[in-house]
Amino acid sequence: MFRFERDALKLLPEGAFVRRTDVRFQDVDAAGIIFYARVLDYCHDAYVDFLARAGFPLHEALSGPWIAPIRHAEADYLKPMRFGDRIGVALVAAHLEPAEEPTEVTIGYRIARIGDGELAAVGQTVHTFVDAATFRRTPIPESLRKALQALST
Amino acid sequence: MFRFERDALKLLPEGAFVRRTDVRFQDVDAAGIIFYARVLDYCHDAYVDFLARAGFPLHEALSGPWIAPIRHAEADYLKPMRFGDRIGVALVAAHLEPAEEPTEVTIGYRIARIGDGELAAVGQTVHTFVDAATFRRTPIPESLRKALQALST
Amino acid sequence: MFRFERDALKLLPEGAFVRRTDVRFQDVDAAGIIFYARVLDYCHDAYVDFLARAGFPLHEALSGPWIAPIRHAEADYLKPMRFGDRIGVALVAAHLEPAEEPTEVTIGYRIARIGDGELAAVGQTVHTFVDAATFRRTPIPESLRKALQALST
Amino acid sequence: MFRFERDALKLLPEGAFVRRTDVRFQDVDAAGIIFYARVLDYCHDAYVDFLARAGFPLHEALSGPWIAPIRHAEADYLKPMRFGDRIGVALVAAHLEPAEEPTEVTIGYRIARIGDGELAAVGQTVHTFVDAATFRRTPIPESLRKALQALST
Repeated sequence: MFRFERDALKLLPEGAFVRRTDVRFQDVDAAGIIFYARVLDYCHDAYVDFLARAGFPLHEALSGPWIAPIRHAEADYLKPMRFGDRIGVALVAAHLEPAEEPTEVTIGYRIARIGDGELAAVGQTVHTFVDAATFRRTPIPESLRKALQALST
Repeated sequence: MFRFERDALKLLPEGAFVRRTDVRFQDVDAAGIIFYARVLDYCHDAYVDFLARAGFPLHEALSGPWIAPIRHAEADYLKPMRFGDRIGVALVAAHLEPAEEPTEVTIGYRIARIGDGELAAVGQTVHTFVDAATFRRTPIPESLRKALQALST
Repeated sequence: MFRFERDALKLLPEGAFVRRTDVRFQDVDAAGIIFYARVLDYCHDAYVDFLARAGFPLHEALSGPWIAPIRHAEADYLKPMRFGDRIGVALVAAHLEPAEEPTEVTIGYRIARIGDGELAAVGQTVHTFVDAATFRRTPIPESLRKALQALST
Repeated sequence: MFRFERDALKLLPEGAFVRRTDVRFQDVDAAGIIFYARVLDYCHDAYVDFLARAGFPLHEALSGPWIAPIRHAEADYLKPMRFGDRIGVALVAAHLEPAEEPTEVTIGYRIARIGDGELAAVGQTVHTFVDAATFRRTPIPESLRKALQALST
């Protein structure tokens, strides 16, 4: 299973796909900063928007021939995010494997505060594409593969 | 659609069904108290436990002949709940209608801090039982009806 | 404490303040529709945006002289909302009391599916303005009061 | 920053600290399994319980001399968890560094289904202890350090 280096993700440009959002009032925890797991919620929201723009709206894909469950997720927290912060969640990289007919993708995320541009977190999720009936690995559909590959260029 | 009076709910005894829980670290909001909608999450958690004890585990009922969507929910917030508070969420009342072959139930909740017993909130949810295939109203199964009626005695 | 009639909320026009959002992948429950309490999250998100546009960003107000805790919230669920639905959450009404120097506001919400316009839910929240130090009722700041009153015209 | 190997976490015994919980109705996503970020919520719930048992209730620690923000979190998903599953979330390991006067701890988690014992996920969180005023690294209090070290024995 491929993973990006945290420092590599930090250095990547924001790139083409960014979802802007506010840190929500209810996503803060008793320590007054965003609850760490909610950062992954925001990454997933950006992933959902990316899929829709790539022509694979997730709510339609869920009733289609393949599913792509997450088998790994992680995040590094660099600066606290607070209610009132506006952030951009960017999909900055995608690594597909195997090179021939890839069935798995690792997506890298970069979260920065809008305004001062301060980098707040990086993250990554690993999605394995499987046949919805047999649960055997299945190739990532070609146009989605191309949209993912475009994230890293 | 039947609704309980807020003051009536406040006066009811805790009764037979109470789910004890901690106010979670991540359920607090940027104002430092429990986010108001999470109180309904806690009511639903108690409802799920009640159904299981009544012999109708919700995860099994979901694939059965009826469903019971919520068509109204409300809560009154009397005292702030904070991270570190331990609370009891009690199902204190159930009103079924129509009297003959009821198809709808209004469940009343009472949430109090454990320790000093201070009343923190009251709430209610209205569930309509419908056939899972036709969406027509269907009578509440008898043993569940009896378990619900027992809440008000 | 003032409350709107459910049927009155249903008939109100969408009005000037609408926050558009997608039903999130993670806000659906095991029955496949939006978890009922999340509808109140979406109402609060719209309230936060309204406050910001009215010149009272909540993250700044939280460190100011007044707070406005919610002492009642409710929602009526008319049509199920599912992942993939795009919805508009409108603030459609505000009732302030007492008439002279109001200290409490009931805000009405109307949630409709974008596209077919189907009404999915109505809701309301009651906010009491109190002095952040003494917890005594304090008048709603004039410009905020005017922004709230404008919701009902 | 120390990280456990995924396969090492999988092989560890459940050990002394386990928090049992149900997969909640509202923590499932539109694909019908637990939303991946909620698994980290459950890990944090277990961490909060562990801290309380170790004599450092987090709600009290939050107003004390140190804080311990999370700077990394990750999880590997091995089997889907569904509403109706009852799970045990175990703290199975803790790595402290530096060896002399440690200021950072990596905690390993193991989540298994109760009943058949099937391993569903492993995870880890990295907490850095800092002075609440200066944000400089500060040693982990001795009795907490001992409670953490006891997780790995």
